[in-house]
Amino acid sequence: MIFFRNDYGEGCIEPIMELLQKANEESNPGYGEDQYSERAKQLVQSKLPEVPSDIHFVVSGTLTNLVMLRHVLRPYQCVLCTDSSHIVQHEAGAIEATGHKIIQIPNSSGKLAPAALAKTVKRLKEDPHFLMEPKLVYLSNATEFGTVYTRQELNDISKICRENDMYLMIDGARMGQALMSGIDYTLNDIAKWADLFWIGGTKNGALFGEAVVITNEALKPFFRHVQKQSGAILAKGWLIALQFIGLFEHDAFYECAKYSNDLASIIQDEIIRLGYPLFMKSTTNQLFLVLNKVQYEYLKDKVDFEIWTYWDENIVVRLVTSWHTSKTSVSTLCQYLQLAMDASKSAEEQADKDEEQLEDQKAAE
Amino acid sequence: MIFFRNDYGEGCIEPIMELLQKANEESNPGYGEDQYSERAKQLVQSKLPEVPSDIHFVVSGTLTNLVMLRHVLRPYQCVLCTDSSHIVQHEAGAIEATGHKIIQIPNSSGKLAPAALAKTVKRLKEDPHFLMEPKLVYLSNATEFGTVYTRQELNDISKICRENDMYLMIDGARMGQALMSGIDYTLNDIAKWADLFWIGGTKNGALFGEAVVITNEALKPFFRHVQKQSGAILAKGWLIALQFIGLFEHDAFYECAKYSNDLASIIQDEIIRLGYPLFMKSTTNQLFLVLNKVQYEYLKDKVDFEIWTYWDENIVVRLVTSWHTSKTSVSTLCQYLQLAMDASKSAEEQADKDEEQLEDQKAAE
Amino acid sequence: MIFFRNDYGEGCIEPIMELLQKANEESNPGYGEDQYSERAKQLVQSKLPEVPSDIHFVVSGTLTNLVMLRHVLRPYQCVLCTDSSHIVQHEAGAIEATGHKIIQIPNSSGKLAPAALAKTVKRLKEDPHFLMEPKLVYLSNATEFGTVYTRQELNDISKICRENDMYLMIDGARMGQALMSGIDYTLNDIAKWADLFWIGGTKNGALFGEAVVITNEALKPFFRHVQKQSGAILAKGWLIALQFIGLFEHDAFYECAKYSNDLASIIQDEIIRLGYPLFMKSTTNQLFLVLNKVQYEYLKDKVDFEIWTYWDENIVVRLVTSWHTSKTSVSTLCQYLQLAMDASKSAEEQADKDEEQLEDQKAAE
Amino acid sequence: MIFFRNDYGEGCIEPIMELLQKANEESNPGYGEDQYSERAKQLVQSKLPEVPSDIHFVVSGTLTNLVMLRHVLRPYQCVLCTDSSHIVQHEAGAIEATGHKIIQIPNSSGKLAPAALAKTVKRLKEDPHFLMEPKLVYLSNATEFGTVYTRQELNDISKICRENDMYLMIDGARMGQALMSGIDYTLNDIAKWADLFWIGGTKNGALFGEAVVITNEALKPFFRHVQKQSGAILAKGWLIALQFIGLFEHDAFYECAKYSNDLASIIQDEIIRLGYPLFMKSTTNQLFLVLNKVQYEYLKDKVDFEIWTYWDENIVVRLVTSWHTSKTSVSTLCQYLQLAMDASKSAEEQADKDEEQLEDQKAAE
Repeated sequence: MIFFRNDYGEGCIEPIMELLQKANEESNPGYGEDQYSERAKQLVQSKLPEVPSDIHFVVSGTLTNLVMLRHVLRPYQCVLCTDSSHIVQHEAGAIEATGHKIIQIPNSSGKLAPAALAKTVKRLKEDPHFLMEPKLVYLSNATEFGTVYTRQELNDISKICRENDMYLMIDGARMGQALMSGIDYTLNDIAKWADLFWIGGTKNGALFGEAVVITNEALKPFFRHVQKQSGAILAKGWLIALQFIGLFEHDAFYECAKYSNDLASIIQDEIIRLGYPLFMKSTTNQLFLVLNKVQYEYLKDKVDFEIWTYWDENIVVRLVTSWHTSKTSVSTLCQYLQLAMDASKSAEEQADKDEEQLEDQKAAE
Repeated sequence: MIFFRNDYGEGCIEPIMELLQKANEESNPGYGEDQYSERAKQLVQSKLPEVPSDIHFVVSGTLTNLVMLRHVLRPYQCVLCTDSSHIVQHEAGAIEATGHKIIQIPNSSGKLAPAALAKTVKRLKEDPHFLMEPKLVYLSNATEFGTVYTRQELNDISKICRENDMYLMIDGARMGQALMSGIDYTLNDIAKWADLFWIGGTKNGALFGEAVVITNEALKPFFRHVQKQSGAILAKGWLIALQFIGLFEHDAFYECAKYSNDLASIIQDEIIRLGYPLFMKSTTNQLFLVLNKVQYEYLKDKVDFEIWTYWDENIVVRLVTSWHTSKTSVSTLCQYLQLAMDASKSAEEQADKDEEQLEDQKAAE
Repeated sequence: MIFFRNDYGEGCIEPIMELLQKANEESNPGYGEDQYSERAKQLVQSKLPEVPSDIHFVVSGTLTNLVMLRHVLRPYQCVLCTDSSHIVQHEAGAIEATGHKIIQIPNSSGKLAPAALAKTVKRLKEDPHFLMEPKLVYLSNATEFGTVYTRQELNDISKICRENDMYLMIDGARMGQALMSGIDYTLNDIAKWADLFWIGGTKNGALFGEAVVITNEALKPFFRHVQKQSGAILAKGWLIALQFIGLFEHDAFYECAKYSNDLASIIQDEIIRLGYPLFMKSTTNQLFLVLNKVQYEYLKDKVDFEIWTYWDENIVVRLVTSWHTSKTSVSTLCQYLQLAMDASKSAEEQADKDEEQLEDQKAAE
Repeated sequence: MIFFRNDYGEGCIEPIMELLQKANEESNPGYGEDQYSERAKQLVQSKLPEVPSDIHFVVSGTLTNLVMLRHVLRPYQCVLCTDSSHIVQHEAGAIEATGHKIIQIPNSSGKLAPAALAKTVKRLKEDPHFLMEPKLVYLSNATEFGTVYTRQELNDISKICRENDMYLMIDGARMGQALMSGIDYTLNDIAKWADLFWIGGTKNGALFGEAVVITNEALKPFFRHVQKQSGAILAKGWLIALQFIGLFEHDAFYECAKYSNDLASIIQDEIIRLGYPLFMKSTTNQLFLVLNKVQYEYLKDKVDFEIWTYWDENIVVRLVTSWHTSKTSVSTLCQYLQLAMDASKSAEEQADKDEEQLEDQKAAE
């Protein structure tokens, strides 16, 4: 089996493992008040030179989202996001469990369309029965479908947020992949658009860990208190800091993301060339591909992937590349895709022949 | 500075680091559905041979407590525990944030006295205005003050719980230290007394991680759902599993705990010999010592410790040993304690002399 | 202005006012432990002869919904209902504030279609990432759009719930109106289909108050505890009991509902006769009518109604009848509707003429 | 049985019943947006001439407390109050259910001592592990034990709050009784000391209803949203408004409170004269009296009272007067108290005699 199941199937890049070993027997203060945490914050800050920020580290993604939303929102304030959002689909009600309603807006290629956002905000503000304040827009970049926001889109969404006294929060579980997808903006721009966001380590070469960045002054105080109350401060906080030192000290964060995007791009080109339908065209490291039954049966014991959803008779599968994916396994995958397509075509031809024969028989009778 | 600040100031024991490196580039399924997690569960289960249990891994302690309590309790059910409990004093309202009231019972040397528990339960059940169900007794073993429950105490508390249709939950952040403190019970006994408990890795040689053990059949289903909803499932779940493989495969868990207890015992004997008052007599790796100002001033730049609380003019400090504490630093600490006591006595003598002189002067006048 | 704004614009029917006055200076135990509460429960129970139930009284609707859902659901369990549900649209996030996720299913004439429900349950149970348990189906009867479930529909939904180990909860804010809408089932049938439901007093002749009925044995214990914790037990509990005595002692509950349905039916017939488009065809006391601008301008200062939503250039308004609506005001309303339609037609004719003239002018030039 | 069980055992004073009847068939807008609510707010505001306030009406006490605290507090902020507080003892965990931790301070005659408050705040602010912000001080005036704060005490507590950036919230379930207990301050002073408070109707002559007063500008916005989300807006909001019109239009609020205080004072004087121990000396309408078994047995079938707690062999009972208590029943109660004391003394004498006899017998043997 070649592994294209996800981008969190292996440990960490070598520089991080080295940092871990080197620091292992040093004595540190607990709860993130150590020198490594300080250094990691400086490194992240150095990528946002124009936006002085508060930076915190949390061990995993759902925990990060729930702490950030608990921190920001008052009971009567709700979140706006697409219906395909991670907090809607894949967090087991974590946000509602903190007491907050999520208003879903139909996605457009996995993205929140600025026009759809503006319309929803207008409708909610005009509804006298709603009695909630739409206060935070949540979006993921890259999206849950592997697509990436344009500069114009982020600009527009940020503007809508400011005009409506709402916060913009960006889930950056795959922020590296978004930034290396060929777009024309940087972390510094993200920091200018968003009031708070996070930069994912788990899915981009770290053992674990996400860096929370708070840019809006009003949201800076007391984050640590909410973090503690949510069980989201690690006793040995320097362990997460080491991940981000490893990712940002020599830009491994960008290299890993570019590497995984490049491999995905090779695969996607081949998918298109072979004539497989795409569920969504991706510019990052997640690919969503439609297989028929023959193709699925051919591939399922050779490639480790995830079934995303069902489309009538067909199966939508997700293929993911990462810092750890080898070029050899990409070649192998492409060969398998070719063979699965061949198998599928033969089966069709055979089916056609069988049908012809049957018709001939019928005619003969 | 010699480090006696806490037992989570360094990384992990060597065998765990080796496991981490070895497994680093293998591809695993996510969210704890991997073979290492399976193996770690078997190892923990092997220590509770008579009690078939559900075992889960969570990255840190407060998160573990809040997930377990959210999982078990209905809105109208409350927790009973000592006023010195970790969930009362050191979790920033995490339990109340999940909606549950905690009823505090005054501690007796850091422990929940069975008689005090019985009396409180009776009072609550008789109060027609209370309209809550006391449903879960929480205790820490070892306690927050370094003391350890006796077999008789745990037996009695467990019996009170069963007679009153309440669950017993044991916080085992320092369970290893409790078990190696010279008591006459094992993890298997703990599993028989408790309905659910946890075994701490963070404070006993692991990088992070606590093992949740659910013994009561009624509490087994859906734990994973609550864990997910609380942001408490790590994407790379095998990382926590590796900690517990490292701790239990060759009983490092017990060795680390015994080692730290033994060093603490040497220090405590010396403290007693030197005549320092103890805030609490400990049988594990946390020592609580009362210093006067001179002693404190002498020690504070030589020994890295934590101020626990203030006692009038005096200062209660905590000294903690761990798997990582060296015998040399224990010797050095004992010398410092001797010198601090000497300094304090000289200062007293000087003060006495000064007073005498003053009186002589007065008499002479 | 004639009042068709809602069915909670006036106080209560005369028999209830008499009960209130008569009981006013008697001394009663507090918190619903009085004889009137006992009597009111017996009266409600007498309408469900085959289903022994626990009955409780809560002062208002949103509070009732949130107490019932808090009582029933564990953190990892979610609610399924239509996107037009009261708990989705009109309770300001009250359900999410208790920590529970609501899964919305597109409505069909305001109703939950059994097939849509079955499909959603299947999808959620098959999704390995969902990690929530769909556990309770919520529906309103009559619906938020004035429509009513058929016996077949309720039968089917109840069956789907039981087959999937889910509870059925029915919001009966307008249960009286549903039961008197010409359907072939009774409160006793409702009690057999649902695991818990409520019977609305506020919108059917009482000052306030809703009767919670719990039929499922497993859900009976501890409701009162959750009610207390939610601030939903009135000190003078007999006040709500008196409402239900007044409604059920001589079946005023049914008479008020029938009366308001009958008046609404007269109005709806006239609306259809006059050619107004209906937003939804109702069989109860809420009518949803589409007005153009001329009609709206004509009516808005003569009839007190609520704007429901906007349809391009047109306005959807809601007209509601109640036990208090007079036949005279119904006649007046019908006249106004006729005149508004006339005004609208004249305006159109005038517009046509103006256009003709303009064209003639153009032609003449 | 004569009724001294509580002050919410009957309906309402006559002027309120008249208002209810008069308004019963008028048509009003829903949810408190009617003219009566406007009028009631003006009347309450007129009692706080120097403090422009936002005023809202909620139907009952626990609901009022939980809505106010949910509105004010962020997740990381906690409440400080006495251990005898209503929110600690009698609300079934309602405050914790909204996610907030309560820090208990030992009461001094039912009151929060300014010095104890200051000490607790200092301790919490200095504790590096606490990671919560003490943000709101809650007190009840009159207290749960019938005592009343002095001007000096309220002044001091208010000052401590302001110096520590904390809010002061006053639970006024028996505010009327406090104000008429002979103290030297008014509602206007309360409004100056507190950031928010409530004035109780339920226990002082109204059918139900409490008036929330928000004086701090920062706390005014969005209260209605939290109220709605908590199920705490009554559809027929004018019903609560009518209670407050009835209470404040001709000062029935003050008269009812004075009347009940005066009767309680007569009873308390008699209790002292007869030599019963007081659990607490009251200046309002709640009396706490210690009975021995003979006294208790004598009284329990003649007087309807509540057992408050047990004191070794003795029983602490609560006697409460209200606007509805008659002077005749006060006289009867005083006679019963005399007779119970007589019975108790006879029993003692008899017991002494029996003992003497026994000793004589022994001596004779």
